[in-house]
Amino acid sequence: MKVDGQHYRTVWSDGRQVSYIEQNLLPFHFIIRSVSDYQKCCDAIRNMEIRGAGAIGAMAGFAMALAFRAAPEKKFLPYLEQARLEIESTRPTARNLFYAVEKVYGRGMNNRLDAMAEAQRLADKDAADSRQIGTYGLSLIRDGFRVETHCNAGWLAFVDYGTALSPVYLAHESGMKIFVYVDETRPRGQGARLTAWELHQAGIPHVIIPDNAGASLMAQGKIDIMITGADRIAANGDTANKIGTFEKALAAKALGVPFYIAAPTSTFDLNCKTGKDIVIEERSPDEVLYQEGLDDHGQCVKIRVCSPGSSALNPAFDVTPARYITGIITEKGIIKLNTSSIRKLFT
Amino acid sequence: MKVDGQHYRTVWSDGRQVSYIEQNLLPFHFIIRSVSDYQKCCDAIRNMEIRGAGAIGAMAGFAMALAFRAAPEKKFLPYLEQARLEIESTRPTARNLFYAVEKVYGRGMNNRLDAMAEAQRLADKDAADSRQIGTYGLSLIRDGFRVETHCNAGWLAFVDYGTALSPVYLAHESGMKIFVYVDETRPRGQGARLTAWELHQAGIPHVIIPDNAGASLMAQGKIDIMITGADRIAANGDTANKIGTFEKALAAKALGVPFYIAAPTSTFDLNCKTGKDIVIEERSPDEVLYQEGLDDHGQCVKIRVCSPGSSALNPAFDVTPARYITGIITEKGIIKLNTSSIRKLFT
Repeated sequence: MKVDGQHYRTVWSDGRQVSYIEQNLLPFHFIIRSVSDYQKCCDAIRNMEIRGAGAIGAMAGFAMALAFRAAPEKKFLPYLEQARLEIESTRPTARNLFYAVEKVYGRGMNNRLDAMAEAQRLADKDAADSRQIGTYGLSLIRDGFRVETHCNAGWLAFVDYGTALSPVYLAHESGMKIFVYVDETRPRGQGARLTAWELHQAGIPHVIIPDNAGASLMAQGKIDIMITGADRIAANGDTANKIGTFEKALAAKALGVPFYIAAPTSTFDLNCKTGKDIVIEERSPDEVLYQEGLDDHGQCVKIRVCSPGSSALNPAFDVTPARYITGIITEKGIIKLNTSSIRKLFT
Repeated sequence: MKVDGQHYRTVWSDGRQVSYIEQNLLPFHFIIRSVSDYQKCCDAIRNMEIRGAGAIGAMAGFAMALAFRAAPEKKFLPYLEQARLEIESTRPTARNLFYAVEKVYGRGMNNRLDAMAEAQRLADKDAADSRQIGTYGLSLIRDGFRVETHCNAGWLAFVDYGTALSPVYLAHESGMKIFVYVDETRPRGQGARLTAWELHQAGIPHVIIPDNAGASLMAQGKIDIMITGADRIAANGDTANKIGTFEKALAAKALGVPFYIAAPTSTFDLNCKTGKDIVIEERSPDEVLYQEGLDDHGQCVKIRVCSPGSSALNPAFDVTPARYITGIITEKGIIKLNTSSIRKLFT
C-alpha cells in the first residue's frame, strides 16, 4: 500500500538485508529499519516492531533465509538449528511464524541458495492471498457502505492489503464511496493507532469510535457490515480475535448487521475442535493501567490512566461462537460456518 | 461516604456558597472547590468538575438558588429566566438537572427566601433516595457475588451512596463478600478513574477491565449480576446511560446475566414516550483523541492516543431498549419494565 504516495510492503528484502516499517513508532513516526542478520530480525518480532500474523510470518521466513546466508560452512547444521530455535521462540503462539520457518528451512536444506527465494515466495503469497480476500470480500460491499472494524487487520498486519481492510481498499480503488468506523480497540489501541493511520494514508474517509459506541451506531442503522480479522479459528468456526470482537458480534446479531471474519485459511487450526480448545493469552495489567501517546512536545510518553489504588485484568483475546458469525472471507472464497464447509477448504 | 476516614458529600452548601469535590482531578488529587455565583456552578457542570446524574441535579438546584440570592430587584424575572436557561443548557441529557431547576425555580418564585431551602431539601432527598435504592438492591445480592458495573453510578455521581454501587456498599457494610468488575468506560474513563477510586476508598475488592472484556467474562460465568445507573428513563422503560451500556445489556441478555438499572424515580421522563424521544449529547472528539493521566513526574498531562490524521466520534450516551433490562431499582422499590408498572410509580 502507499505511504505519502510511495508504495511499501510492511516487510521486504533485497536478498541481502530485510527492511520493515517500525510499527511501535506508528502512527506518530514513520521509520523504515533495515537489518542484515537473523538475530536482529528476532529482536524486531520480539519487541513488536513488526506485529500481525502475516507480517510476523514473512519476517520469520526472511530471518531464516538470512541465517542460511550467514551459516559458516564448518558449523552449518548447528548454526541453522540454533537460528531456527531462536526465531521460533520469539512469539511462540504465532502460527504463521512456524509455518514460514519450516518452509524456508526445508528448501534451504535442499539447496542453500533457495532459502531466500522461498522466503520471498512466502511474502509474495501472503500479499496475493490478502488481495484475493479483498476480491472475494468486495462482493459483500455496495457503493456508499459504512463498514465497522475492530483492531487492526489491515496491511500493517500482513505483507500488503491485509484481511478485514482488503475489501475496503479494493472498494475504494474501484471508485466506490466507502466509510469506515474504526473501533479504537482498547487497551492497546490498534484501531486508533494503526487502522486509522492506514486509512488516512489511503485517503479513505473514516472516524475513530470508542469501543463502547458500536451497538449504538448499529441500532441507528449506521453500520452496513462489520468485518474483523482473526487470530485463530477452530474446526467448527469459533473464532479467537482481539478482545471485544465477541461483544461486536453479539450486537451485530441482535441488531441485524452482517458480521464477517476475514482471514487466510492458514488461520484455521483444525486441532482445536471448538473455541473451548483455544487458549486465551492474558497480558500485563499495565497495558490497561497505563497508556502511551504523544505529549505537547512531540515526545512519546506513558501515563497512568487508572486510579492508583486499583489493578486491572487484561485478556488479550475473546472467542466468538460460530453462530454469531455470518461468514468467513478467505483467499479460497467466502464460507458459511459449519464443520463440513470448513473441512472442504482443506480437501 | 468516607475519604481517608472523613465523611463527605459530593456537593453541599452553607447557604451562601456551594462546595464540591473537583472530580476532574480525581483519582490523582482530592480537592474541594467552593463557588458563590450560579455562573461558576454552570462552569463546574459544563467542565464536568461535577458530573453524574444526582450530583449534577443537586448542583443545578444550588445554582438556581444562588441565582435567587443574586437576582437584582429591578430585573428579577429576566435575570432568573436567563439564569435558568444557562443552567439548563449545561448538560442537555441530564434529567435530574431539569427537575431540580424546575423545583427550585417554582419554590423561589413563591418566596425567594425558600429557594436555598428547596435546593438543600433536594440534595438531602438525593442522599436518602440513594440509600433506599441500596436497601432494595441488596435483595438481589448474594454472598460471594461478582458484580459488573459501567461508568460511575457510585456516590460521586450523586450526593451520597450512589445508585448502582449503593447495593454494593450496603452488602459490604453488612459483611457480605462481594467483588466488582469495573468497566474502564472509555472515553472519559469514569470507571477506571472514579468507580475504582470509590471502591478502593471503601476497601471493596475490585478490578478494572477494558470495556471490551465484558461479554467474554459473562460467557465464562464470571458475572453474577450487572448494575448500572441511568441518565434518563423514558415512559416505556427505555434507558439512556453512558455510551456502552447498551452493548453490555445486549451481552447480558444473550448470556443470561441479570441486567439492572439503579436510578431514583426523578430519572424518569414521562414526556419521553420511548427512547427515540431522548436527545443524545455528542461531545468533543478530543475526549477520544487525547487522554489525561499522570506522568512519571506526578504531573497530570494530556497525550494524543490516536493517529494524527484522523478524527473521532464521541456520542456520550446510548439508549438501551426496555426489553434488555431485567428491572429498575428505584427508591420506591424494584420494578419490572412495562408502561403500567412505571406509571404506578407516579400515582
